[in-house]
Amino acid sequence: MKKRRIRESGIKIGRMRPGSLNKITDVPGVKVGHSTLNEGSIKTGVTAILPHGGNIFTDKVVGASCVMNGFGKTLGTIQINELGTIETPILLTNTLSIGQCADSLLKYMAEQNPQIGTTTGTVNPVVCECNDMVINNIRAFAIREEHVNEALSTASSDFLEGSVGAGTGMKCFGLKGGIGSASRILSFPDGNYTLGVLVLSNFGVLQNLQINGIPVGEKIRARLHPAEDDRDRGSIIVIVATDLPVSSRQLRRIIRRATIGLARTGSFMGNGSGDIFIGFSTATLIPYQSDHSLLSVHEIYEDDIEQAFNAAAEATEEAILNSLLMSPAVVAQNGRIIHSLSEFMDDIV
Amino acid sequence: MKKRRIRESGIKIGRMRPGSLNKITDVPGVKVGHSTLNEGSIKTGVTAILPHGGNIFTDKVVGASCVMNGFGKTLGTIQINELGTIETPILLTNTLSIGQCADSLLKYMAEQNPQIGTTTGTVNPVVCECNDMVINNIRAFAIREEHVNEALSTASSDFLEGSVGAGTGMKCFGLKGGIGSASRILSFPDGNYTLGVLVLSNFGVLQNLQINGIPVGEKIRARLHPAEDDRDRGSIIVIVATDLPVSSRQLRRIIRRATIGLARTGSFMGNGSGDIFIGFSTATLIPYQSDHSLLSVHEIYEDDIEQAFNAAAEATEEAILNSLLMSPAVVAQNGRIIHSLSEFMDDIV
Amino acid sequence: MKKRRIRESGIKIGRMRPGSLNKITDVPGVKVGHSTLNEGSIKTGVTAILPHGGNIFTDKVVGASCVMNGFGKTLGTIQINELGTIETPILLTNTLSIGQCADSLLKYMAEQNPQIGTTTGTVNPVVCECNDMVINNIRAFAIREEHVNEALSTASSDFLEGSVGAGTGMKCFGLKGGIGSASRILSFPDGNYTLGVLVLSNFGVLQNLQINGIPVGEKIRARLHPAEDDRDRGSIIVIVATDLPVSSRQLRRIIRRATIGLARTGSFMGNGSGDIFIGFSTATLIPYQSDHSLLSVHEIYEDDIEQAFNAAAEATEEAILNSLLMSPAVVAQNGRIIHSLSEFMDDIV
Amino acid sequence: MKKRRIRESGIKIGRMRPGSLNKITDVPGVKVGHSTLNEGSIKTGVTAILPHGGNIFTDKVVGASCVMNGFGKTLGTIQINELGTIETPILLTNTLSIGQCADSLLKYMAEQNPQIGTTTGTVNPVVCECNDMVINNIRAFAIREEHVNEALSTASSDFLEGSVGAGTGMKCFGLKGGIGSASRILSFPDGNYTLGVLVLSNFGVLQNLQINGIPVGEKIRARLHPAEDDRDRGSIIVIVATDLPVSSRQLRRIIRRATIGLARTGSFMGNGSGDIFIGFSTATLIPYQSDHSLLSVHEIYEDDIEQAFNAAAEATEEAILNSLLMSPAVVAQNGRIIHSLSEFMDDIV
Repeated sequence: MKKRRIRESGIKIGRMRPGSLNKITDVPGVKVGHSTLNEGSIKTGVTAILPHGGNIFTDKVVGASCVMNGFGKTLGTIQINELGTIETPILLTNTLSIGQCADSLLKYMAEQNPQIGTTTGTVNPVVCECNDMVINNIRAFAIREEHVNEALSTASSDFLEGSVGAGTGMKCFGLKGGIGSASRILSFPDGNYTLGVLVLSNFGVLQNLQINGIPVGEKIRARLHPAEDDRDRGSIIVIVATDLPVSSRQLRRIIRRATIGLARTGSFMGNGSGDIFIGFSTATLIPYQSDHSLLSVHEIYEDDIEQAFNAAAEATEEAILNSLLMSPAVVAQNGRIIHSLSEFMDDIV
Repeated sequence: MKKRRIRESGIKIGRMRPGSLNKITDVPGVKVGHSTLNEGSIKTGVTAILPHGGNIFTDKVVGASCVMNGFGKTLGTIQINELGTIETPILLTNTLSIGQCADSLLKYMAEQNPQIGTTTGTVNPVVCECNDMVINNIRAFAIREEHVNEALSTASSDFLEGSVGAGTGMKCFGLKGGIGSASRILSFPDGNYTLGVLVLSNFGVLQNLQINGIPVGEKIRARLHPAEDDRDRGSIIVIVATDLPVSSRQLRRIIRRATIGLARTGSFMGNGSGDIFIGFSTATLIPYQSDHSLLSVHEIYEDDIEQAFNAAAEATEEAILNSLLMSPAVVAQNGRIIHSLSEFMDDIV
Repeated sequence: MKKRRIRESGIKIGRMRPGSLNKITDVPGVKVGHSTLNEGSIKTGVTAILPHGGNIFTDKVVGASCVMNGFGKTLGTIQINELGTIETPILLTNTLSIGQCADSLLKYMAEQNPQIGTTTGTVNPVVCECNDMVINNIRAFAIREEHVNEALSTASSDFLEGSVGAGTGMKCFGLKGGIGSASRILSFPDGNYTLGVLVLSNFGVLQNLQINGIPVGEKIRARLHPAEDDRDRGSIIVIVATDLPVSSRQLRRIIRRATIGLARTGSFMGNGSGDIFIGFSTATLIPYQSDHSLLSVHEIYEDDIEQAFNAAAEATEEAILNSLLMSPAVVAQNGRIIHSLSEFMDDIV
Repeated sequence: MKKRRIRESGIKIGRMRPGSLNKITDVPGVKVGHSTLNEGSIKTGVTAILPHGGNIFTDKVVGASCVMNGFGKTLGTIQINELGTIETPILLTNTLSIGQCADSLLKYMAEQNPQIGTTTGTVNPVVCECNDMVINNIRAFAIREEHVNEALSTASSDFLEGSVGAGTGMKCFGLKGGIGSASRILSFPDGNYTLGVLVLSNFGVLQNLQINGIPVGEKIRARLHPAEDDRDRGSIIVIVATDLPVSSRQLRRIIRRATIGLARTGSFMGNGSGDIFIGFSTATLIPYQSDHSLLSVHEIYEDDIEQAFNAAAEATEEAILNSLLMSPAVVAQNGRIIHSLSEFMDDIV
């Protein structure tokens, strides 16, 4: 069965226009790389998002975080909130590998920047996670430094969705989840900007899945006879990128609207679901050292933010659906099949 | 020169009575362990705080965090804030070793608890850091899993202060900093409780140091002729333990008062100083799985919280002074001597 | 045309069972009162929610607040967040009347409690607002102390929805909005509890309105030819009541799920929409003075919270739809008709 | 006895240089006005801080708030946090008069701006309070609209400190408190900026009062034989103004350092003390309506923020001491004398 994204299936999410790839990499300079481990019971990986092609430590991006449900272990948000910047690539992985990923990211940053730990303080690594224990043997602690480096070094603007990288072992709405992406074009008088979203989807129970308001999950569930474990133990990480000139405060307002897209797929942010959003804007690069002048920055007026709100909501909804559609069925650790949403697109949706 | 704690020097901080050890381990069940690396340019380590002697994952403690200055990389606060519990020992280390420490702590927890990643989800590791790059070759990434395990396995109620564990390479008020501790007794009609504090001190500039309001730092600075680099780039981690029955909300209020103790030593929470406080109460252990009844908990009335506020302020102030006094002079990476406060106690204070 | 609530129209929102009234007053003890001003250009009012029938100041309820979009002027949340309690009735009104309502509520509380301002400190009034300027002459500052007292003194368990009280002049999804309510039953091994929601709806643009996933708003908009002003300038206040034994922290988690219900009606939390939620639990009454013993409280296990999450999401969604259906069409200040959703239920939904 | 400010008493707080008035009004454009009620048992008032001389609604200032202890009823912080702006004068008053003050401020703003409630939404009033019930008959609800208007219309750059305006009935460290102010000059390569502080002081117990580290309070207490009620039931409001170009995020970091100044006077942020700080920067005025271009703003580099941290700490400490010294003794409602710190300056300090 050929995998198709939701828009290729003839279903349009929202009213705004996507970018050319309809991925987070439509934001100029953003790159995404994966390292996929898929052998035996090991089904996991690492995904890296690079905010721009230069040195992110010396040219930081404006950053923000939003924790809707804090049942999660994401590293790096304390400093993002305080300083309003992000200074490393963002890594996604399985929950038990955050330590390994943080360690490897710190070494990668130290190698790239000899001034770290010598003349200029340290660095704030950003690592997000979801728990892939249903499909992956998470207790094997399979991620190694080489996997982190692979994800970082292979990052490009053209990247795969579905069961790749950190998405390899994820489960979402009782179906196979993983990596998904989408983007939207923002029209301003002075030109267009782009907002892109990448999700690591690992949340929800089947009966709640909706596509454009249609209760698809209930129909699929009716066909799959055996009783499901309907606990929502998963999580979702949403990464929002944009080149719109915004402050950290404005960016936090924008990424909070990922909640809207999330809700429209059927999530109710279950107890065990860590719903955590990280955003960055590449419009202004913040140098790592002051020249003791003033920084001159551009920002949109607050009145003009609504497009970006809509874009974050729409792109998150579409990215989640793409993560489902691009992930093939897989056998879980307990031997049960985790189906793919794509199996049901022809006759149910 | 024999090292003496501040109270042994005849100086009393505040008005409340300390516990018998005047350490965080006066709180029944709390244990502290160190792993110290002190060879050549490697001067760093790990310190572990164990909230109680049992299995912390299956019997969680009430927890809270407070970020006064978020220029820091502490891991674990998102979930502490959301769920109000702590479920692992707390590790302290140098900034670039948080990944390694998180990874080792996750493996330690997984080994102790076979249900993690199989039947019960994952676990939220708590790892705090300060940047010891002035004294330690932090770019060596010297901490290994064995050091984390040493700190965890050697934890006891009787532990060293000063240049040990995570405190080995820390610098505070331009002098040698490190690990310090203090405690206070809380008197309630139904009996006494204890509040204890442990700090990892790595902040401040010399000229600001005060002891009980006396501007000791200025006097010491006048004697040490060479011009200091007076940037406050460090951080402080404050761990607060108590057996007082409090909710997570009350506990957050209590630990926020560590700021008061901090201010009274002369800190103004400089830009680069990550001032982060973590607290736990052992009064109620929260089982990791519900039996679907109701949890019955005790809490103090809000009216009765003020003693605990004072205790947190006083114990933090005294713990910082102890961290200075118990740390001997050391040679920094650039060859300069980082003096010990204890050198100046006889004729200056 | 007879007004019918959404459930009477044959449409079920969600899967959980409502209480007998399907209103916030299904929570035992909760009462709601209105004062409605509807004369000429004055179309506004006050709505009061009383958490229980006793003295709320001397027997406080557990409280929590959640600000999803802070473009609003709600008074009282600082102290709710710090102390985790609510100690007055909650008032809803128009934006420019919050001062008057706060003043009247303070006087009402002072009269009821001679100890306020003499032996026991002051009191924290909770007043929420939406901007009804499209329909109401808000610059008339029409609310007086007598209206506040009327809302407080006429509160009962059986109250009207729609264009009453604070809802009189509200507009929602380009249609007439106002007061709506719904409730859900929570099943626990030791018995049932209730969660109820009351909304003051004043947000959204017509084209986004959805009912159970059906894009009703687009269809209505197609029929109403003139171009709408599609700026989302309104707000929504959601009040959540329950008798479930929860801590303030747990309650905040629960009421945050009102976002889910909100999103499912079509909101994307527009820039100008203050989306603010206040919750209280009547399970444990907190006495206003300590007797210096310990407070003994019951709380659900975190594992058991999910029902309450679902209930908050479902009841919010249904309450918003009820607020629309129970509000008749009205002429706005600029002479245009603000239609009622009920006009379109027979042939569109 | 002539009242002298702390600096006139020969005591220097901190190391930075004050502005020419050593008041908040050293920040260009800032004005302060009082309305004082002092007749019989009525000892209260209103103080207004105007961020600049123009129309604050149409030219908003960058704003931030910081709640260190939320036992307070301040109105307006939700929107300050969300939008990062302040759009009205800031009012200070007694706790039970916040409703009246908010109402009067809303009417004042509506009169000045016909577009409010007609073409442009509403307005976010900022009103702060402390509880003056020990000295003032707070239950008389004595503040009226005329008092608010008096404070607003008489605002000037030269204003009184001590028992004036909102400070009339305040008590601090068991002594007479009230309004105090101080300022500091910030030196940047491109020129000087100013940071000014105004406090409404109403917190603390006598035994804790310190001046530059000297335990003045204990000495005064020893002389005043009768046992004090040593509960800290009061509060402090700190208003920070600056013309330094900073974002709302940077401003929040700066005003948080008011805590340091507060701690150094002897506060431990007692349970009942609402410790709430509001700040604004006049460097960039934000127009109330977008012209759909981009806003161009200047901000300091984060590296350069430390001066402003120190300034906020020093000016807060000095402003509190000024509020004590400029307030004469008064007879409390219970007939006891509330002494003035100035009585003890000659022989104790």
